[in-house]
Amino acid sequence: MTANVTLSHMDGDGEDATGRTRWGPASRAKPLPDSAAKLLAQVLELTPPPPAVPPADVTADTREHDDDTVLNALRAAIGADHVRTSRPIRARHAAGMSTPDLLRRRSGELRRIPQAVVRPATTAEVVSVLDICSRFQVAVVPFGGGTSVVGGLAPPAVPHVTLDLGRLNGLVAVDAISRTATLQAGLPAPRAAELLAEHGFTLGHVPQSYEYATIGGFAATRSSGQASTGYGRFDDMVTALTVATPRGTIQVGRAPASAAGPDLRQLFLGSEGTLGVITDVTVRVRPMPTQTHYEGWRFDSFTDGLHAVRKLAQDGPRATVLRLSDEVETMIGATGSGRSDGGCLLVIGWEGEHVHVVAETAAAVLSAHGGRPLGVEPGQQWEQHRFDAPYLRDALLDAGAFAETVETAAYWSRLPEVHERVRAAILDALPHGALVLAHVSHVYETGASLYFTVICSPGPDPIDRWHTAKAAASDAIAAAGGTITHHHGVGTDHRDWYAAEIGDLAVDLLRAVKHHLDPAGILNPGILVP
Amino acid sequence: MTANVTLSHMDGDGEDATGRTRWGPASRAKPLPDSAAKLLAQVLELTPPPPAVPPADVTADTREHDDDTVLNALRAAIGADHVRTSRPIRARHAAGMSTPDLLRRRSGELRRIPQAVVRPATTAEVVSVLDICSRFQVAVVPFGGGTSVVGGLAPPAVPHVTLDLGRLNGLVAVDAISRTATLQAGLPAPRAAELLAEHGFTLGHVPQSYEYATIGGFAATRSSGQASTGYGRFDDMVTALTVATPRGTIQVGRAPASAAGPDLRQLFLGSEGTLGVITDVTVRVRPMPTQTHYEGWRFDSFTDGLHAVRKLAQDGPRATVLRLSDEVETMIGATGSGRSDGGCLLVIGWEGEHVHVVAETAAAVLSAHGGRPLGVEPGQQWEQHRFDAPYLRDALLDAGAFAETVETAAYWSRLPEVHERVRAAILDALPHGALVLAHVSHVYETGASLYFTVICSPGPDPIDRWHTAKAAASDAIAAAGGTITHHHGVGTDHRDWYAAEIGDLAVDLLRAVKHHLDPAGILNPGILVP
Repeated sequence: MTANVTLSHMDGDGEDATGRTRWGPASRAKPLPDSAAKLLAQVLELTPPPPAVPPADVTADTREHDDDTVLNALRAAIGADHVRTSRPIRARHAAGMSTPDLLRRRSGELRRIPQAVVRPATTAEVVSVLDICSRFQVAVVPFGGGTSVVGGLAPPAVPHVTLDLGRLNGLVAVDAISRTATLQAGLPAPRAAELLAEHGFTLGHVPQSYEYATIGGFAATRSSGQASTGYGRFDDMVTALTVATPRGTIQVGRAPASAAGPDLRQLFLGSEGTLGVITDVTVRVRPMPTQTHYEGWRFDSFTDGLHAVRKLAQDGPRATVLRLSDEVETMIGATGSGRSDGGCLLVIGWEGEHVHVVAETAAAVLSAHGGRPLGVEPGQQWEQHRFDAPYLRDALLDAGAFAETVETAAYWSRLPEVHERVRAAILDALPHGALVLAHVSHVYETGASLYFTVICSPGPDPIDRWHTAKAAASDAIAAAGGTITHHHGVGTDHRDWYAAEIGDLAVDLLRAVKHHLDPAGILNPGILVP
Repeated sequence: MTANVTLSHMDGDGEDATGRTRWGPASRAKPLPDSAAKLLAQVLELTPPPPAVPPADVTADTREHDDDTVLNALRAAIGADHVRTSRPIRARHAAGMSTPDLLRRRSGELRRIPQAVVRPATTAEVVSVLDICSRFQVAVVPFGGGTSVVGGLAPPAVPHVTLDLGRLNGLVAVDAISRTATLQAGLPAPRAAELLAEHGFTLGHVPQSYEYATIGGFAATRSSGQASTGYGRFDDMVTALTVATPRGTIQVGRAPASAAGPDLRQLFLGSEGTLGVITDVTVRVRPMPTQTHYEGWRFDSFTDGLHAVRKLAQDGPRATVLRLSDEVETMIGATGSGRSDGGCLLVIGWEGEHVHVVAETAAAVLSAHGGRPLGVEPGQQWEQHRFDAPYLRDALLDAGAFAETVETAAYWSRLPEVHERVRAAILDALPHGALVLAHVSHVYETGASLYFTVICSPGPDPIDRWHTAKAAASDAIAAAGGTITHHHGVGTDHRDWYAAEIGDLAVDLLRAVKHHLDPAGILNPGILVP
């Protein structure tokens, strides 16, 4: 099972240190398909980078304390074995998996690394760690699966430790009648799936980071999965949560819904470790589906496809998985497949009981909106490759190309404009050539997500090029009326646009909330709020 | 249409001043059915109260300012016509519609009345009012439909004005593609329905207070409607909102869903006017249903009925309206109808297209769980009387009985215990006899609401008796694991239990948020947070 690979990879203590220069362990690297390599060579100037520097040779500003006082206090609180100070382990926890993170890891030029990786085992121990770090004014970077692609694990420019949640990895309780489960924050998603499956349940939360991400990370970043059209976003699933803060523990969520004041769950969901450390969540679960069925449909244009998926989102039947590629993504996806009749590909799928009945009802809607059925083959292709993209980003880097993703959500009426303006802005910002692919993968009654993949040559200064294109895309999202992020989170990369999106008064409000819960300002400084 | 009645009743300026001693205008009073009156006389000691005191004779501590400085500043900001100081108008805005409110209104013993009723017309004018009141340290009680049944309009023990939102009563925008509408906060629900119907849309939000409540009130109290099983709670519908605070205006909600930080919409929804004044909301709307169908089912026991509705809530088909009465409520409801075969009544309904197909699928599930179909008559009865209960509360008071409601929500696994313990606690607290009825009317995958109606004799000190029974019920809800309110809100009546439910640290956090947004502490002091 993948779970074993995942656990040994993610527990922060294995020998697989080189894995952190790539998505997943080196053993799972995927080569770029020949057809894709050929296509890229035709349209982009490929510039393969030098080989990755081993972790032991990584350079970083470590800002060591002069003495071991804080580390000794942490050792006394949670046990010496759980305060890790070996340099490779610290280096591995010094960044996430954003493209700049990967480039820095490859070049061995990490900016900063934590003084230690601390691994508390209980909520009370997390509170102790936060208390000690508050007293010694040492920042704390909560770390789950380490999969942030938006600089959510950017190390602060002050002395800091990484708080690895890997030991909070249990299934605490299952309530089969209410269909809820309480899961600890450090539980990797595949392990959570195994544990729930023993009770006949599934969470249905399968983002692209699924193989490595953790439950707490899903909550802290408002993650959205490939099946979120059917199962809902992770923030929809959470009915209760526990948060450890420097002031103590908060537990919220007494009932499925309540009119008792503001919904404080929604203040901590998406707080990205800046207001507290989520240590467990109670989530709605569903019975394991007895049937799954994924199939493909073709539309003449993205516009036609948008009409069709909007109709399904608003009037049903609601699909479990729904992914509509624009013309460019459809074309790139079809490269080497022999399929090349243009148009746009929709992959749509159902999980549950009687899925074929629902699929038939949906087929009538899709046909009425200009869809042409392509059978199950595109669905199987999607299922087989659903986790490939981040591995292919590494393969592209190896081949000398540069891949990044940009995502947003908007109301249906704004979606076409967001699509056009973001595409145009990215192409403008990358005058040396780029491929810009997009798809809709999460639909709501009032709107949908939009996910762009950008492939370009890295140029002489890849991080600078990345900043330029990222800023252009983000400006275009804001100007066209989208949200700066639909499922990756804010981290450091989206911080300025996030602030503009919610406005000065709301930013001040978040600062006031943070100051109240974290008076020493130790929790993930620099993340989320400027 | 009801809208005209509603508007003239609710605009705070009509001649129908005596209406504020009852639910709705006196002209709409409903008599107690003879059969009910007979039943009550058998089980309770009825003690008819003295006739209501006219508003002009109302006594109250008005705490007038020595001078008119603050009123003149308000007149300058929003126009002299919109700062109302006549005593009947002020008296009418001095309370809501809780049972103690009604008793005080009837006896003419209002505790306090506002110095003025101010009626700003725009968000900017609301901000001006808040600014002026902050400077003069005058508290502000936001007022929509005035229908709070939990002391949400309890006048503070400091100089204060009521901020009547009646002039913010427009439909600002409809986005037919995205199926959203922007509605101003003071818009009465029936008028909102009329305006949306002109565009072919419905909100589907029909709480029992529908005839008099306003859009802003729904948002500020996290209202839930009789069709919320199908249309969702009001807080589910809100995609964006504008809040006027003493520090300025906050606008949140850029997309249907977002991973951009905490969901700040959820901080203001349910804030009951303590963090700001919601001035408009953008809500998801749906096409007007082409068909509606409501029908009745009988179950041998509440336990059997709970199994059946849980099955529907978890595995579908999802109903629009779902109301399962316990044995006592079923028996009382059947009084005088000739139906008397015991068991529990389920009223279930669908709104939309092809409702009979869905009803047939649901029928199979209900039959499989021991349900026996009763046809459409119970559904028609429910529909015809869906807004009657608050009028009957007045009729009961006239007849010398005392009716109150208590409501909660809990996970399915806890629901039977909550039902039993709350019932027992109320009966214990009312040793002179009481009827305790209950129903489930909002279901979720993980749990449901539970709504109790209590009828007893008022005794020599009705408000004291009310406090005793209310405290016993609230303690039982807390002890059995329910939330202190599923759809009425916290107000003053649930404040202490709310604080216990979220814990000291969360209460402190809310206080910090309030202090940041409302440094002078003028917004609804005493409401929500102790």
